[in-house]
Amino acid sequence: MKIAICQLNYTVGDIEGNTLKILDAYNKSVADGADLAIFSELSICGYPPQDLLDYPHFIEKCGQALSQLAEITEDTAMIVGCPVYSQLEMGKKLYNSAIVLRHGKIHEVFSKTLLPTYNIFDEYRYFEPNHEFKLLEFNGIKIAITVCEDLWDLDEPKLYKVSPMEQLKPLGPDLLINISGSPFSYKHIENRGELMRQNALKFDIPLFYVNQVGANTDILFDGGSMFINRDGVIAEELEYFKEDYKLVNWQPDMSYQSHSHNYKNDDIALIYNALKMGIADYFGKSGFKKAILGLSGGLDSAVVTAITADAIGVKNVLPVLLPSKFSSDHSINDSVALCQNLGMHYETIAIKDTVHSFESLLEPLFKNTQRGVAEENIQARTRGNILMALSNKFGHILLNTTNKSEAAVGYGTLYGDMCGGISVLGDVYKTQVYKLAQYINRNGEIIPQNILTKPPSAELSPGQKDSDSLPDYDLLDKILYLYIENLLGPEAIIAKGFDAAIVNKIIKMVDRNEYKRFQVPPILRVSDKAFGIGRQMPVVGRIN
Amino acid sequence: MKIAICQLNYTVGDIEGNTLKILDAYNKSVADGADLAIFSELSICGYPPQDLLDYPHFIEKCGQALSQLAEITEDTAMIVGCPVYSQLEMGKKLYNSAIVLRHGKIHEVFSKTLLPTYNIFDEYRYFEPNHEFKLLEFNGIKIAITVCEDLWDLDEPKLYKVSPMEQLKPLGPDLLINISGSPFSYKHIENRGELMRQNALKFDIPLFYVNQVGANTDILFDGGSMFINRDGVIAEELEYFKEDYKLVNWQPDMSYQSHSHNYKNDDIALIYNALKMGIADYFGKSGFKKAILGLSGGLDSAVVTAITADAIGVKNVLPVLLPSKFSSDHSINDSVALCQNLGMHYETIAIKDTVHSFESLLEPLFKNTQRGVAEENIQARTRGNILMALSNKFGHILLNTTNKSEAAVGYGTLYGDMCGGISVLGDVYKTQVYKLAQYINRNGEIIPQNILTKPPSAELSPGQKDSDSLPDYDLLDKILYLYIENLLGPEAIIAKGFDAAIVNKIIKMVDRNEYKRFQVPPILRVSDKAFGIGRQMPVVGRIN
Repeated sequence: MKIAICQLNYTVGDIEGNTLKILDAYNKSVADGADLAIFSELSICGYPPQDLLDYPHFIEKCGQALSQLAEITEDTAMIVGCPVYSQLEMGKKLYNSAIVLRHGKIHEVFSKTLLPTYNIFDEYRYFEPNHEFKLLEFNGIKIAITVCEDLWDLDEPKLYKVSPMEQLKPLGPDLLINISGSPFSYKHIENRGELMRQNALKFDIPLFYVNQVGANTDILFDGGSMFINRDGVIAEELEYFKEDYKLVNWQPDMSYQSHSHNYKNDDIALIYNALKMGIADYFGKSGFKKAILGLSGGLDSAVVTAITADAIGVKNVLPVLLPSKFSSDHSINDSVALCQNLGMHYETIAIKDTVHSFESLLEPLFKNTQRGVAEENIQARTRGNILMALSNKFGHILLNTTNKSEAAVGYGTLYGDMCGGISVLGDVYKTQVYKLAQYINRNGEIIPQNILTKPPSAELSPGQKDSDSLPDYDLLDKILYLYIENLLGPEAIIAKGFDAAIVNKIIKMVDRNEYKRFQVPPILRVSDKAFGIGRQMPVVGRIN
Repeated sequence: MKIAICQLNYTVGDIEGNTLKILDAYNKSVADGADLAIFSELSICGYPPQDLLDYPHFIEKCGQALSQLAEITEDTAMIVGCPVYSQLEMGKKLYNSAIVLRHGKIHEVFSKTLLPTYNIFDEYRYFEPNHEFKLLEFNGIKIAITVCEDLWDLDEPKLYKVSPMEQLKPLGPDLLINISGSPFSYKHIENRGELMRQNALKFDIPLFYVNQVGANTDILFDGGSMFINRDGVIAEELEYFKEDYKLVNWQPDMSYQSHSHNYKNDDIALIYNALKMGIADYFGKSGFKKAILGLSGGLDSAVVTAITADAIGVKNVLPVLLPSKFSSDHSINDSVALCQNLGMHYETIAIKDTVHSFESLLEPLFKNTQRGVAEENIQARTRGNILMALSNKFGHILLNTTNKSEAAVGYGTLYGDMCGGISVLGDVYKTQVYKLAQYINRNGEIIPQNILTKPPSAELSPGQKDSDSLPDYDLLDKILYLYIENLLGPEAIIAKGFDAAIVNKIIKMVDRNEYKRFQVPPILRVSDKAFGIGRQMPVVGRIN
């Protein structure tokens, strides 16, 4: 039996485009003599469709696309993902389904049982869980068909009361298929392969796992679809961070060689590739071609420039140097050196006069006050205004360069350097940004060495350094990680040996800056716990 | 039996403050000879606690507060709301519980069965549904205890497969208590009373309903707790939009007089009161005292100024006139007249020179281009920068004045007039803003008549009017309502007789501006479908 694993990059809501992609891959599988072509979760509408699912006309359009796909099927079957009405008299209206299309019609529907509703997932918002367990009989083979989370219940304690595979195994399946929309995280990729292996081993069954690839705004999908033999051997693995297709000639009693991984098991390389894909798809799927960003001479904007150049091409990135009277010579020189290393055109716009104009305007109200955050922010917002004016005039999208450490403690100016259409580094701690820079320089200097070695500074007041306001990033990031990723409270963090005053100060800063994070652009998500929809905290209220 | 209904304004996360409030009301109920004092859903942690629930130390703190409250109880019992660990071996870790405290200890725990997970609700993100149905035996009376949504399943088709009251009724309850955290919407208030009446009638049981009051960031709670007799008569009703306390002397066979409503059943009056409370609590709970906003001479900023003055006091509002070279005389005169009507100090800062400074700076890059959105936005962002500088310098919070019609179609400048800590009118359509202005003027002119009669204009280019880019607001708002509130697609809206070209244009504008709405401040929610957490749409992707 020949099974085609079709790993595609879908666009949320683009039913027509997604259907055409599915059709192309299906036609290829037919030409290859496949018996079955499998596509990922909610492939027709793209994942995650969010509240588009609340619109009846959207569900109808999905249904029409499904019927059109069904009509062209002949002996080669396909399994696609689509929301379908439940037809039940009670409960949520929709199922998240894997639908078998064959011989010109909708052959059979299998729906998702386990609906993840935590972190970035909110499937119980839309879907009714499946309660009917059955196998697909296909050319004499019995196939268990599951959707994503349905296989993610091996860990103790159990999050779900029903185990789909415990229900399906007694029915005697020969083969297990899982259609998935499993987001990337640099912590997740290894776990996912291992979990799928454990499923194959535990239920003594060969497993075809098909994931989507590509970015839908902030949520990144890395692909890495697999065929795993019943002995837990990963026999086939599709590419990461790109579309792929693989025809597997599967025989019930055949044994398979282990396949070496298609990804480098290196957090920083994974993050780099994920961000590159995230940027490319943000532009590709929104129809914009060109990016603009402010180049400060610091690490973050340098790293964003380099990754974006790799993602959408050097010619499509416009860095703008916006020196103020506090900008050091090295900021300008380092930025210029970066652009030269990349062969990239840049613009320079000195903001001094405009900042001065603001200060004159405000002088009557500001007189007798001390220079401080207000004056610093005027500079950052003047830069934001200039970058947005260029964006509005020429159609570039502004990239936000705030890193996760800054976003966490609110070290940034709302409507200033926190502007942008998409945040590239908002889920990357500063200590990781350093490593990204080293990764970018792995084959020769792109990011000038001085950017890596000089002390970080916002350069909004004379001689300012990040370390004036913040602990060293090594220490800061450790504490932030324990608070944000590990969900430890201040007492538990202090109990790990950190200084109580520093821990309390940092956690207060994180809590107090929810209002800033509420207004940041979508953040490309690379970790298990990113700011955004996956971490919903009160803006007004007391947290600790 | 004497039952004290305690309708309080809790702050999310402020366990200590909430516990003290509960204690105060409990002590009063003891002094009044109450047998039982009832508090609303999740009263100890405040509702909605969001992802604070993911932090184990937060749940522990809730548990400690619960124990402290339990310890002080004597013969008067209390029912409070608190998250508690489920102790189950599988499923979500927490229950959303109503806890009976009496005689110095935690007497009994009743947990929520129906977990709303739609619109602004995401309770299945955190909680395990209750499956155990039992009554509280209390001084010889059998009481059914339910939590909020548990009584919201009367409509067909049923959203839930279990009906808590269908389970509890056969056990023979004498009395029904519902502790609730039911958010305000101007469409919801009437339905809620009717639904509670229907519950009393259907299950032939007297009902004590206790809601919270106050705003937690964007989500507003109107109170309106009730005692309803078994014959569906609303015999007692607590205040709307403020804390209240009522002792009800309930006897099983007593009959009760109907009580006239404590609210005026007028959408606009309700919205006004809700916004006023929302502003007051945004400031009160975040610890800020003073508001700043830009006064354009238009309707929206005038209405926000008037409501805010009512909410936090005339002396705590600083309106700033920021005329540009395109500002008309009437914009300035009308703004001054408004401030005079309110007896409010204002500042005037002309932005012409600073805008000119930006334009000079950009001239080398902008030459040979046509004046357009980029130049218009420079003005709006210059205003934003000035207002934020004042905010940063003096500690005022900037109020956003964008209305729902503008937010819907993206008629506003990101980082310009879309700045602010809280959006007052982001859930109020322009046609409703006019009515709010008339309501504000009900006892005499506050908002100058000219603001109500002149055609709306952003005044960012010579002679500009909103109607240059948008259909009349009457028409626009009707189409927006059908799309946003009623979830109709373009075809269904056109089928209602609207012009196809206009409908398609408007819906494209709504869809295309998700990126702007992603970055707006929290919006005070007054309708059933506000922008924000209750409407989660893809930023990149195709929608229609």
